Amino acid sequence: MQQSIHGGDLYKTANSVGIRKEDILDFSANINPLGLSQQLKEALIAHIDDIINYPDLECNELRDELSKYTGIPKEAIIAGNGASEMLYLLFDVLRPGKTLIPAPCFSEYAKAAENYGSEICYYELKEEDNFRLSIPHFLQHITDGIDAVLICNPNNPTSTLIDKKELLELIEYTRKRNIYIIIDEAFIELTIGGNQNSVADYLKQYQNLFVIRALTKILAIPGLRLGYVLGDSCIIKRMWKNKIPWSVNSFACNIGKVLTENVGYFEATTAWLAAEKEWLYNELIKISKLKVFKPDTNFILMKIVNMDMNSASLKVLMISKGILIRDASNFKFLNDKFVRVAIKDRKSNSRLVEALRVVLNNAES
Amino acid sequence: MQQSIHGGDLYKTANSVGIRKEDILDFSANINPLGLSQQLKEALIAHIDDIINYPDLECNELRDELSKYTGIPKEAIIAGNGASEMLYLLFDVLRPGKTLIPAPCFSEYAKAAENYGSEICYYELKEEDNFRLSIPHFLQHITDGIDAVLICNPNNPTSTLIDKKELLELIEYTRKRNIYIIIDEAFIELTIGGNQNSVADYLKQYQNLFVIRALTKILAIPGLRLGYVLGDSCIIKRMWKNKIPWSVNSFACNIGKVLTENVGYFEATTAWLAAEKEWLYNELIKISKLKVFKPDTNFILMKIVNMDMNSASLKVLMISKGILIRDASNFKFLNDKFVRVAIKDRKSNSRLVEALRVVLNNAES
Repeated sequence: MQQSIHGGDLYKTANSVGIRKEDILDFSANINPLGLSQQLKEALIAHIDDIINYPDLECNELRDELSKYTGIPKEAIIAGNGASEMLYLLFDVLRPGKTLIPAPCFSEYAKAAENYGSEICYYELKEEDNFRLSIPHFLQHITDGIDAVLICNPNNPTSTLIDKKELLELIEYTRKRNIYIIIDEAFIELTIGGNQNSVADYLKQYQNLFVIRALTKILAIPGLRLGYVLGDSCIIKRMWKNKIPWSVNSFACNIGKVLTENVGYFEATTAWLAAEKEWLYNELIKISKLKVFKPDTNFILMKIVNMDMNSASLKVLMISKGILIRDASNFKFLNDKFVRVAIKDRKSNSRLVEALRVVLNNAES
Repeated sequence: MQQSIHGGDLYKTANSVGIRKEDILDFSANINPLGLSQQLKEALIAHIDDIINYPDLECNELRDELSKYTGIPKEAIIAGNGASEMLYLLFDVLRPGKTLIPAPCFSEYAKAAENYGSEICYYELKEEDNFRLSIPHFLQHITDGIDAVLICNPNNPTSTLIDKKELLELIEYTRKRNIYIIIDEAFIELTIGGNQNSVADYLKQYQNLFVIRALTKILAIPGLRLGYVLGDSCIIKRMWKNKIPWSVNSFACNIGKVLTENVGYFEATTAWLAAEKEWLYNELIKISKLKVFKPDTNFILMKIVNMDMNSASLKVLMISKGILIRDASNFKFLNDKFVRVAIKDRKSNSRLVEALRVVLNNAES
């Protein structure tokens, strides 16, 4: 059985402590706390009878909406079963011999690349740089033999966003060397500035650029399974050819309009993020046992300092308070002092801060 | 863009003739015409808020129900995004060098096998045998070098069911020669006798046997995406390891109970099938321009005879009557005289028969 190493694994946790999963406050999954929009919910229910038909193999209506939303032509868009399927399929088609990945990062990248025979080279993001990627320094590591570079922007678990101009330098650098550059923008809508931070508008100029997107985080729909890739239409065509048919279910095929029509939800998200990101960060830095890395998106990486407790113990103690946090020790280059928490609504965030304070101070005495 | 070669492609058809897809009577997809059961619909709506959480990676609750339904232990069950994902994943893990497949059959088999480097050998089912597989004759074709045999039972598009005792001979024969045998039972519940025709109860004795199942047809949920494989738990474990995470969406994770609790729906299905399979077959054989192959499951293969019309033309003429049938000419070993129709409710079946009669007779004159 596959061992879960991802956030949001409520099921196991709930089972392990005998609490109903509904009673656990989940800070381990980085999902928009505004939850399901009413419009999305209504769209799902309105289309429930569609499941008696096979989903549209080519996701035409969905891609029409994604095209409006991203400004990218439909033929340069493929949709799939979450960003996960898209990632695997992209490696299946590109088949880079050697892939360079800054880390710590989402562990699925290496798994997908290695699944298609790619060798992985990691570039270590350093704690002393607050895990921020320095593009000039990174460029020096793009040596001969590298066929693809994969960047998560903003990056998970470090919550760091790369300056768009610097990212353009990197894209230009890889283009000149015929290197693919894959940017995972799963959290891009959950940054201050949102889609303006995306490099999607460079796609026309750069055939070596691929942008992976998901609706999981921004629309709070990890259970629905919907991701997409933007990129060169010839490669996209090959991805369609290799894709398992009907992997996007009928429900997911029908929610495109929410992206372009549900303006209120996106505005409310922006307002929430601007307020809570600062608030939670400022509260957490008051806890002396935590080193808190300044977040650029809707989650925060932290390190337990000045005490013996490790991340696994902190996780267990927090579960006993009904709060699930992400033990981040299994991310490449992190250790058993790191944890990650999502940013949620004020009430939940307050509960998190209070519980951390109690747990860390009690352990002290 | 992937070209659709499967039944049920309502979207393209509706577009091509300018009819709303709701107004087309779809005989191309072999789905239980009883449609969504009320209990299933209620379960889907009740769990709608679950999509804000990641689905259970291991589909535990679903597999508990599948275990009750099939009598197979949970650790010998993997669930995935339709039978398609299961098929690909099984070939990914088994990696047979050479796979023997009776055909005509579902085209995805060869695609999945070849995707993982397997060579395909076809065994031709002959029209003069009414496309029925003769096991003694087939055994002679399981020559040295064959690593896997893949059988669809009942078979698509021929609607033929293999006698269970004969199938056991084949399974025994392959076991002795260390050959994997994969049986796709996507339509097994839609045969007279239903699950009693399944070879799932042989799984304990035969480690070389794998059974692919889907809930698509029996529960009329092709849009939901849910399939599963029953087989040796070591292989199943490796399939979990290779599987793209979360490919079973939250909705699909939550419908297991319908299988074990919605007895009324299954009884009604049995009654419908027993009545309509005979009725439609007996009506169709009255049309002199059609050679009709006797069906064992919920669809019927037919051949246009005694006239020049081909399957593509018949399809177009039927669409003009608001009825979509399956042009079966692209199935291996069939030609442009073959079409396939689903068996639906009496009212729809009558419309089909009447339209076929009119279209075929008009062409005559």
